[in-house]
Amino acid sequence: MQRYAIGIEFNGQHYRGWQTQQAGVASVQLTLENALSKIANHKVEVHAAGRTDAGVHASNMIAHFDTSAIRPERGWIMGANTLLPKDIALRWIQPMGNDFHARFKACARRYRYIMYQHRFRPASLYGQVTHVYQDLNVDNMIKAVDKLVGTHNFTSFRAAACQSNQPVRQVTHARLFRHGAFLILDIQADGFLHHMVRNIVGTLLEIGTGEHEPEWMDYLLEVQDRNQAGITAPPDGLYFIQAYYPTEFNLPSVDLGPVWLNLPA
Amino acid sequence: MQRYAIGIEFNGQHYRGWQTQQAGVASVQLTLENALSKIANHKVEVHAAGRTDAGVHASNMIAHFDTSAIRPERGWIMGANTLLPKDIALRWIQPMGNDFHARFKACARRYRYIMYQHRFRPASLYGQVTHVYQDLNVDNMIKAVDKLVGTHNFTSFRAAACQSNQPVRQVTHARLFRHGAFLILDIQADGFLHHMVRNIVGTLLEIGTGEHEPEWMDYLLEVQDRNQAGITAPPDGLYFIQAYYPTEFNLPSVDLGPVWLNLPA
Repeated sequence: MQRYAIGIEFNGQHYRGWQTQQAGVASVQLTLENALSKIANHKVEVHAAGRTDAGVHASNMIAHFDTSAIRPERGWIMGANTLLPKDIALRWIQPMGNDFHARFKACARRYRYIMYQHRFRPASLYGQVTHVYQDLNVDNMIKAVDKLVGTHNFTSFRAAACQSNQPVRQVTHARLFRHGAFLILDIQADGFLHHMVRNIVGTLLEIGTGEHEPEWMDYLLEVQDRNQAGITAPPDGLYFIQAYYPTEFNLPSVDLGPVWLNLPA
Repeated sequence: MQRYAIGIEFNGQHYRGWQTQQAGVASVQLTLENALSKIANHKVEVHAAGRTDAGVHASNMIAHFDTSAIRPERGWIMGANTLLPKDIALRWIQPMGNDFHARFKACARRYRYIMYQHRFRPASLYGQVTHVYQDLNVDNMIKAVDKLVGTHNFTSFRAAACQSNQPVRQVTHARLFRHGAFLILDIQADGFLHHMVRNIVGTLLEIGTGEHEPEWMDYLLEVQDRNQAGITAPPDGLYFIQAYYPTEFNLPSVDLGPVWLNLPA
């Protein structure tokens, strides 16, 4: 069996998330497994770096699968992109040793949450950004974002359904910045709890609109109570943009997404 | 009756174009008229600066309508954006004198055609960019684009179904440039023939792939024969981005689109 790592781009609007237990409901994972299984001519299981919620997107979700089929790398990608629906695409593929595991070997994951700030809602990017019509105190939001960096107990930002066995995560990078009409949160951590980014964004928006001061973030990290933090922001603006692995695995580097942002790393 | 000018953004993927004669088929115009008629409480007719084809988008299509209803400007926009489907939105509205006409007073229209150049197809932006997997000689394409500027007979780039009474158009601006993974044609003219931009792009792609030299463009402008030029490029990458009017009308200026490009004017 040969192990392959793959990079996957998808628009999550029409999916019940990366993974779903429900029969008859489309998940990105199942759609991808069906396509790869046809090319391999045997049942393929795909393991991903992260599990995204319904409606969440990815510009470079990293996953792996094992196969006994011998195909050129280009054949895997061209075949998969022919079989996959238009809103899911393979970006790259690379043969790996069996010691690679997309989930367990990942040292960090990175997300971007993209808000479109305008008095009126967008049309072209419906479902691909989160519309914010309010005026925002971005300086205060940035102060709150800075407080996220470090090792914290994120219980206040953890969905009730979260299956993780502990709520402590190390945030290695968190930055909020403007890019044209967009306001973007770029956040990297060793891992994320269920709804963690969306709950952080909901909280930041309440700071941006002036309902709370930036110090509210200190309080929420301390109090460890989901009921006190902001609401869960919509999935529309959330993108899984990268997973990081030990350099020995030598995975291809791709631009951080989504592709239309055209931002430097 | 009060005349209003409006700016409309739409994702054209699910429409049979701006206007359609076919009953039971969704057009952007009809969808918009239905929404505005509900707000006005009388039948509203919308007249646009240009008529886009099926699958073509707009970041700032300009149109006008007349109404006897008295509503605050914000009420028109909020009302329309509530009634309209997610892929059509009003960006702005402005009361106008009856001498304004979105179609007949426009002195120029401007389009952008966005190609996504990558070995493999996109997922996030499916239907919103045209995928080009080939290597392209962009310098040669730029040479050909430069030849478009000026007053020419565009018969070679005119669809058989074109209803215009003459094929001469004045191109006041034509530029091809890279922006990240995108290759963009930005073109402005007093008016455009049916399929003109898409036929120009199809021709430019044949120059980019080396099937023809840049001088082929001179020949095509001269020979005035649609059968000799390139194929019609897909609608996916085409955006109506602006219409220009005499300054006396004082229309609001908006960023040139689509919004996600974040390009300077």
